[in-house]
Order: sequence, then structure tokens, then C-alpha cells
Amino acid sequence: MTAAGEHRIAITMGDPAGVGAEVIVKALARLPAETRRRHLVVGDSATLRRAIAICGLDIRLGYADDAIAVHEVAVEGLPQRFGILSDACGEAAFRYVETATRLALGGEVAGIVTAPINKQALNAAGHHYDGHTGMLAHLTGGRKTWMLLASKTLNVVHVSTHLSLRAAIDRATPERVLETVRAGHAHLVRTGLPRPRIAVAGINPHCGEGGLFGTEDDERIRPGVELARREGIDVTGPIPADTVFHRANGGAFDLVVAQYHDQGHIPIKLIAFDTAVNVTLGLPIDRVSVDHGTAFDIAGKGIAREASLVLALRRAAELAPGWGHVWRATNPGA
Amino acid sequence: MTAAGEHRIAITMGDPAGVGAEVIVKALARLPAETRRRHLVVGDSATLRRAIAICGLDIRLGYADDAIAVHEVAVEGLPQRFGILSDACGEAAFRYVETATRLALGGEVAGIVTAPINKQALNAAGHHYDGHTGMLAHLTGGRKTWMLLASKTLNVVHVSTHLSLRAAIDRATPERVLETVRAGHAHLVRTGLPRPRIAVAGINPHCGEGGLFGTEDDERIRPGVELARREGIDVTGPIPADTVFHRANGGAFDLVVAQYHDQGHIPIKLIAFDTAVNVTLGLPIDRVSVDHGTAFDIAGKGIAREASLVLALRRAAELAPGWGHVWRATNPGA
Repeated sequence: MTAAGEHRIAITMGDPAGVGAEVIVKALARLPAETRRRHLVVGDSATLRRAIAICGLDIRLGYADDAIAVHEVAVEGLPQRFGILSDACGEAAFRYVETATRLALGGEVAGIVTAPINKQALNAAGHHYDGHTGMLAHLTGGRKTWMLLASKTLNVVHVSTHLSLRAAIDRATPERVLETVRAGHAHLVRTGLPRPRIAVAGINPHCGEGGLFGTEDDERIRPGVELARREGIDVTGPIPADTVFHRANGGAFDLVVAQYHDQGHIPIKLIAFDTAVNVTLGLPIDRVSVDHGTAFDIAGKGIAREASLVLALRRAAELAPGWGHVWRATNPGA
Repeated sequence: MTAAGEHRIAITMGDPAGVGAEVIVKALARLPAETRRRHLVVGDSATLRRAIAICGLDIRLGYADDAIAVHEVAVEGLPQRFGILSDACGEAAFRYVETATRLALGGEVAGIVTAPINKQALNAAGHHYDGHTGMLAHLTGGRKTWMLLASKTLNVVHVSTHLSLRAAIDRATPERVLETVRAGHAHLVRTGLPRPRIAVAGINPHCGEGGLFGTEDDERIRPGVELARREGIDVTGPIPADTVFHRANGGAFDLVVAQYHDQGHIPIKLIAFDTAVNVTLGLPIDRVSVDHGTAFDIAGKGIAREASLVLALRRAAELAPGWGHVWRATNPGA
């Protein structure tokens, strides 16, 4: 171990049948040794070695200064073949997250970066969560969480995510808007922006155009924005959704608060389809995720792209005390 | 007159205080004479001459082969200053549209392209419409209309537009989805795509994920798509909204059916903020519009960009019988 625990990031391997192992070894192989050794992969060595071979990489597992450090989690039935859904892999994916969360809660790592899991496999193994976020909330006792999607040019945090559109409209209360602005603001301050410029998207077309197309923007979004502004946050809105993402993407805002899942996901996926990262706000630990799935159809072929994971590692580093500057110094291009 | 009536496109000047006159003279000056003379500006010559002077263009009004042809509509109180809202300009904007519509209904022009109007000015002049579309529906007896936004890489048609998000969810019935697919399909066939590939966006995140996040996708969108498919249309969906626009933009589909205003506007504005065009489907006449407003703040300065209008003129040309190939032959780059 060459770095203090609080300066290491745990990377969960995700579903062993998915592209997680591949993108992890590719991403870590790409980093200089000084950066690489600040990571700890929570997963299965046999699967990782297969991924290294498939990708034709010249890198080893272990605790040598230039190797990939692995926190081994023994799960019955592994390794499995890539691309095949199984309960053994669902169980493994769960155990990696559980272990990494314990390490983070205990201060042994600074935060966790998660590779993708498969909900069906998770359910087949008897773990009934809607995905990482529900699992992490349960494991950490976190009660309110937010999904922030980050790309190079656009950051979006969601008032709600996995709800029907009707339920999402109901969820957009002044209090929830306020809390979302606060959560996004606090996150950006931690990543080094002392006074982030935040925009809040409207919910109805043209923000309802004075009540012609709905009253939610005037009655619920605007009051939430006002409350946040009174706390001294640099926040503007509601701004019509069809212009706010364009403006933010052009540099006018550091963060957009989206009122519902697709409102934030459509623009991010359009400009950064497989290079965005997903940050969970509201947990007692830092968690960043790649923004792609297990991709069983291409798993084990060595062709999955590691770009999203590299960005996720970078974001996690920026959140770790005293770690962001090391990343920037050793990875000027990433 | 050098071209038969049915081969001419009428361009309404829009609100005389807005950027309409500028972008019209800029766009027409940029076109070769052979293309230019197939247009007829419905508006005010004095305002157009001022715009020519402001933009420093070397072009004249009139019926010479290389001039800009104007169908003069006399309105009291004109010309007005650029950038100032007035009822005279609202009245003028209305009269230009009324006149152009009459020309189109009578077969004297093949279709109309509209420069932006100002709703407040329109209302001040006693014309109470929500904009061009309502006005055109009233003037032509059109009963159901659709807004199609077109950019170079992405085309979107909307199941509904200027409705609250709650009302838009209610509007997305199987019948309306079917009719929207039909309208979009017919339009693309007319622009020269014999078998357009159409995708229908879902309404809930992940299309409701089997009912977990709402039932509208399974109960209303999917049946509408099925009905359209049974008519022989190449249509797929519902597809989750956070991936369908990315896929269509990458070439997988010729058209996306969006379920509500912002769902379609967010991606179009993000990738083609001031270069998209707006086509109204469902009217007995062809109508294409620029996708920007009157921009009173920059009107009269000669800096408004004509890109959207050039694309609108091109789209209108493609819809006019025997006209699209002339445009393509004489404007290879536009």
C-alpha cells in the first residue's frame, strides 16, 4: 500500500459477466502508475486477469507500485463466462458494492466508483433493489439521494429520476427544488467551484407562459428557486427547458437542475452518450458511476470503451481531499 | 415574373420591428438569382429597403431577374423603428400571413415561409392567436396540426406542443400517436424519402420499465405504434427518450415522434439552436418557419443570422413540385 487509505478510491467490478472488468483494467492500464496505485478494485481476480488477457494489456494484479490492487471478494460459482446473466454474478455484484461501501464508511477508502450491474441478475440473487442507488441508500442509511450527470460541458442534477412522468410532476415541490439546488451546489463547491452558477429548468413548455400551459413553474419551481437564492446560492430559474441546456452547454451555467429523468438525460446522452459520469448526491459516502450498462452483448470482446470510467475516476479524485491535484498533475489530458 | 406561380414560395416578413426583414434580405442576397427569383416577399418595401441598407447589401427590390420580388401589403403606420413593439407592426404581421395564405390557397404560390411574429404585438392589434399555427389553422380551416422541427441531423414531430406537461400526458393517446406518425411519414415521403424510418419516444423514464414507472408507454404509446405499423409504416417504439434522440441524431432514424414539447425541443435546440426549421403539418398549405423569434433586442443592427431562414427556404422548396431539384442544383452548399 503506497497511499494512505483516505486517498484511495475503491472501484467495484460490477456484474462479472458485463463489461466492468474490461473497462476497469483498460482505464487503470492507461493511467500512470502514480495515479493507478491510488485505486483498489473490489472484485474477482480471475475475471480481471481474463479481462487483461482479452484486452491484450501489459499489466499485473497485486500490490507492486505499478500493479492493479485488488480487494478480493470470494463468491461461489465465479468466474463465469462473459455475457451470460446468472444469479452467481448478481450475488457477486452485490457483494462488491457491499464491501466497498463498508470500506468507505470505515474511512479505508475516500470514495467508491461503480462499474455497471444488471438488475435482473441482482434480483435473481435475491437482492431486490432498483439499482445501485437504492442499494447504496439502504447500505449507508442515506435517505434522500440525487442523481447528478456530469459531462465535460454540461452538468445536470435531477429533482427526481425513476418515477412516472406524472409522479415526477408531483415530486417537483418548492422544498424538493430547494434541496436539489443545495445538493448540487454543495457538490460543485467540493469539486473546486467556489460559487457555482446554477440554472433551474422549468417543467412546462415556456415555463407555462404565465399560466397558459400549466401553473407548476410559477407556483412551485419559482418559490423553490427563491428559497435557494435567499440562502446566497447563485441560482436562476425557472428557465424554459428548451433553452437552458443549450445555454449551460455553451458555458452560461455550471449546473442545470432538471425536473425529471428524461429532461436531464436527453441532453446529456445527446452530447456525451458514453462519456458522462453519474454522481450520487445525498449519501454519507462519495459514489461516482459510469453512465453505461453491463453491455452483455459486447462483454468479453475487449471492445468496450473506458472513457466513462476514466471520467468517473477523475470525478471521484476531485472529491477526495488532497487527491484532485495529484490526478491533474499526473493526468493532464484525462 | 420568371417562374410559374406554383413554383414560387411566399415569404412573410413577420413583425416589421423584428429581425424578419434583415434575415430575409440577407438570405435572398446570398442565393443565386435563379433561386432568388422563385421567392416573393409579402411585406413592406420601405422596411425591406432599410434592412438592405443596414446590412450593406448590393441588391434591389422589384421584378428584375436578379431582384427581390415584393408583394406589397399597405398597413397604416409603417414603416416603424426596429426593436419597438407596436400594434401597427402586430397588424402588419397578421396581414402578411393572411395575404400569403390566400396566395397559397389560391395556388399562386407553392407554399409559405414565415419570419417571426410577436404575440404581444399581434394581441395589441386585436388578433388573438397563440402564434402562427393557430392563425394559420383559422385562416385555412385546418383542424389538426403538428409541429415538426428539422435540423441537418435530427427531425422531430410532436404529439402535442403548447400544453402543460400534465395535459400533454393526457393528449398522448393511441389515436394521436398514430395520427402523428402518419403526418410525419407523409411529410418525409413528400421530401423524397420513400420509406422513412420513424422512431417513437416513450413518455416515462425507460418507457416505464414494464409498468414500474407508469403505464402510459405500454397502454397508449405502444398500441398507437402498432396501429401505424399495421399501415405499413416503418415505425419503432416506444424507445426510451434518453436514447432515441441520440440514435436518431447518429442516423438510425429519419424522424422521432416526441410526446411533448420539451422532449422534442431540448435535443433540437441543443444541436441546432438557431439553425433548425419548423414545419407545420396538417394544414391544407405548406408552411415552414424559422425557428427563432423576433429578437427585438438585436433588430435593426444587421447582425441577425439568416441560417435558419435559408434552411426554411430549402425545406419549402423540397415540398414544392419540381422545385427541390432546382434548389439543389443551384445551391449545392446550402
